[in-house]
Amino acid sequence: MPDAVLDDISHRRYNPLRASWVLVSPHRTKRPWQGQQEAASKTTLPHYDPSCYLCPGNKRAQGDVNPHYRSTFVFVNDYSAVKEEHVDYENQDQDGSLPTFLLRAEPVTGKCYVLTFSPSHNLTLADLSPSQILPIVNTWTNIYTSHLSPHSPLAQVAHTTTMTPHSQTESFATPNAQYRYMQIFENKGAAMGCSNPHPHGQVWVTTGTPEEPGIELEQLQKYRREHEGANMLENYVTLEATKKERIVFENGSCVALCQWWATWPFEVMVLTKKHKRALVDLTDREKQDLAEVIAEVTRRYDNLFETQFPYSMGIHQAPLEGTKEEVEASHLHIHFYPPLLRSATVRKFLVGYELLAEPQRDITPEQAATRLRDCGGELYRKKLE
Amino acid sequence: MPDAVLDDISHRRYNPLRASWVLVSPHRTKRPWQGQQEAASKTTLPHYDPSCYLCPGNKRAQGDVNPHYRSTFVFVNDYSAVKEEHVDYENQDQDGSLPTFLLRAEPVTGKCYVLTFSPSHNLTLADLSPSQILPIVNTWTNIYTSHLSPHSPLAQVAHTTTMTPHSQTESFATPNAQYRYMQIFENKGAAMGCSNPHPHGQVWVTTGTPEEPGIELEQLQKYRREHEGANMLENYVTLEATKKERIVFENGSCVALCQWWATWPFEVMVLTKKHKRALVDLTDREKQDLAEVIAEVTRRYDNLFETQFPYSMGIHQAPLEGTKEEVEASHLHIHFYPPLLRSATVRKFLVGYELLAEPQRDITPEQAATRLRDCGGELYRKKLE
Ligand SMILES: O=P(O)(O)O[C@H]1O[C@H](CO)[C@@H](O)[C@H](O)[C@H]1O
Ligand SMILES: O=P(O)(O)O[C@H]1O[C@H](CO)[C@@H](O)[C@H](O)[C@H]1O
Repeated sequence: MPDAVLDDISHRRYNPLRASWVLVSPHRTKRPWQGQQEAASKTTLPHYDPSCYLCPGNKRAQGDVNPHYRSTFVFVNDYSAVKEEHVDYENQDQDGSLPTFLLRAEPVTGKCYVLTFSPSHNLTLADLSPSQILPIVNTWTNIYTSHLSPHSPLAQVAHTTTMTPHSQTESFATPNAQYRYMQIFENKGAAMGCSNPHPHGQVWVTTGTPEEPGIELEQLQKYRREHEGANMLENYVTLEATKKERIVFENGSCVALCQWWATWPFEVMVLTKKHKRALVDLTDREKQDLAEVIAEVTRRYDNLFETQFPYSMGIHQAPLEGTKEEVEASHLHIHFYPPLLRSATVRKFLVGYELLAEPQRDITPEQAATRLRDCGGELYRKKLE
Repeated sequence: MPDAVLDDISHRRYNPLRASWVLVSPHRTKRPWQGQQEAASKTTLPHYDPSCYLCPGNKRAQGDVNPHYRSTFVFVNDYSAVKEEHVDYENQDQDGSLPTFLLRAEPVTGKCYVLTFSPSHNLTLADLSPSQILPIVNTWTNIYTSHLSPHSPLAQVAHTTTMTPHSQTESFATPNAQYRYMQIFENKGAAMGCSNPHPHGQVWVTTGTPEEPGIELEQLQKYRREHEGANMLENYVTLEATKKERIVFENGSCVALCQWWATWPFEVMVLTKKHKRALVDLTDREKQDLAEVIAEVTRRYDNLFETQFPYSMGIHQAPLEGTKEEVEASHLHIHFYPPLLRSATVRKFLVGYELLAEPQRDITPEQAATRLRDCGGELYRKKLE
């Protein structure tokens, strides 16, 4: 049963996954909006766009030509944010003096991949069926496996999933170095900085542990130590399964929910019900379940405001190279961070107070979950056809 | 001298103020941009807008009428995110069981003020002279003073600054409760979620310590303990004054710089050169200097891309109620977070990787500082008149 008091008063909720707080102001949804409106969804895109650098057979920015791929396609980003070349860098003044602490830097080596979801220029995850999303889950698993440290406790279970014969990849099989972490993510929609509408995600691997997964990993390990080896997120899913009010969709092995501490108005977290350290821990059946939950979340998003719902989403899982404790404490989950608040054109801005003081949200996660539960069913665009 | 290696390789820089890292990819500035473009600056606004709820003499959303104010004007936000009414809330299942830890909340009491910068609907900080910005600095000081705990070590130095006779306020003199922290900030421009172009800022006070100032306060205290009572930001300013490459503008007591660990492309931090715990520590001369630096930063921002440069900015200083240690470790500073990257219409999106893994920037703080140093002088709009 929802906690009626919290529906009405401003309060903060604790995020145990990153040891931080979010300010919740449910009454503020009454505020009229006179600010910026997003552009409403563009006219329908074609199935193939000759000027798109992601469509099969087309030329990319640096001159490479895409193969005529027929499922997923992976290549190294032509404008990678991190590169494989190793450069030496030492902090200046290595004598413990001020500059060392106040002007501290370290070099980062890595690799950035782009992963198209399908050959179609106009089929987003919301348009795809679970069986069409499955090859994407398999590609994520394979790219993770191929970058996994041979010393990882996961190396024993990891094996490359047989792909549909049409999946293609340029070069992810042979990384030059052992990377520490792999961040798989998707930016969808112009409002989320996506620079090409052809549905695609990205995969960045780096030598260092990035901030966010690093904080989560600390918290997960701490919980495990303090709760006799229990897994925080497994406990959390079990708890939410009894409460029900924040659950959006669930099937045999996976669940999508608006978590207690969510920040974005319609933020969703996808988790496995049992403890899974990384994609490689999933059985074929569980991968199908995961694909179904991704289909359900993205379709409900589009149905909510009858628009191409923008978001950033990404997978957190065990580091590619990590201690046994780190790998065991990890729990595979997906974060969806969508900016829209009230309609296809009015978004929530995480600006001023949020940047300088504390993230703030208006509608509660329970209200968001209720709305997302209620907009299942066929994709609104299909009904219009 | 700039560190030439870091101009070219991807690296991470450490932020000692919040114990976090930012990924820097200087080579990525070459990336072509095909994504969303911001709307270019609107046509010129009128001096007075009869439909604006901030202009003098106009009616506000809930029916109140603004006085015919002639300098700054402060009132309680008609759609406050936090409210003064106290509500009891206890976490359920107070037996140390899972819900208590995984579903944790606390009530927040507070107050949200709006502060118009001047009666003019169309004069931004960039349009104002230092002597026109001084009343705003004085208003910030007064609202801080009037909410300060009588037990604060600052209570002895704090006294309400004599205001220009035209400044007006509805009700900030008598808070019902002792609040812990005051966040003063401004969201400027539609791109930063500002819902009314009439230049104004906000002031939120809360019973809890918000996340960001809380993290900074921990780090500042830690530094103070580990460096025999020294102040981190005072040390930092001293260091930057010898290096020069990140300094944008300085006068007798204040400096604006693109700090080593800045995240946004043209992020700027304004600091006092000497250790000042809060606005109330400033002499009249130092307040004038601060007003001048604010004028310089905002004017350079507008000149950079010849546009009304959007940003969120805010002041971090000592908590309203805090221990002696907390107050002594605090150092007054202003953060400017502007989103534009390459032009008036191309912004940096802190999305996907940034939200899920680690903040990432393209141009280096040294490059940004060079560009901001080079665009001083008269406001571009004045030259066009
Ligand atoms: O209070 P305003 O200006 O209406 O609203 C703006 O600032 C607030 C505080 O940073 C944010 O929570 C809102 O998302 C933003 O639109
Ligand atoms: O790599 P893209 O899609 O061109 O760029 C997008 O995603 C990146 C990773 O989240 C961000 O750093 C960019 O700001 C964003 O525009």
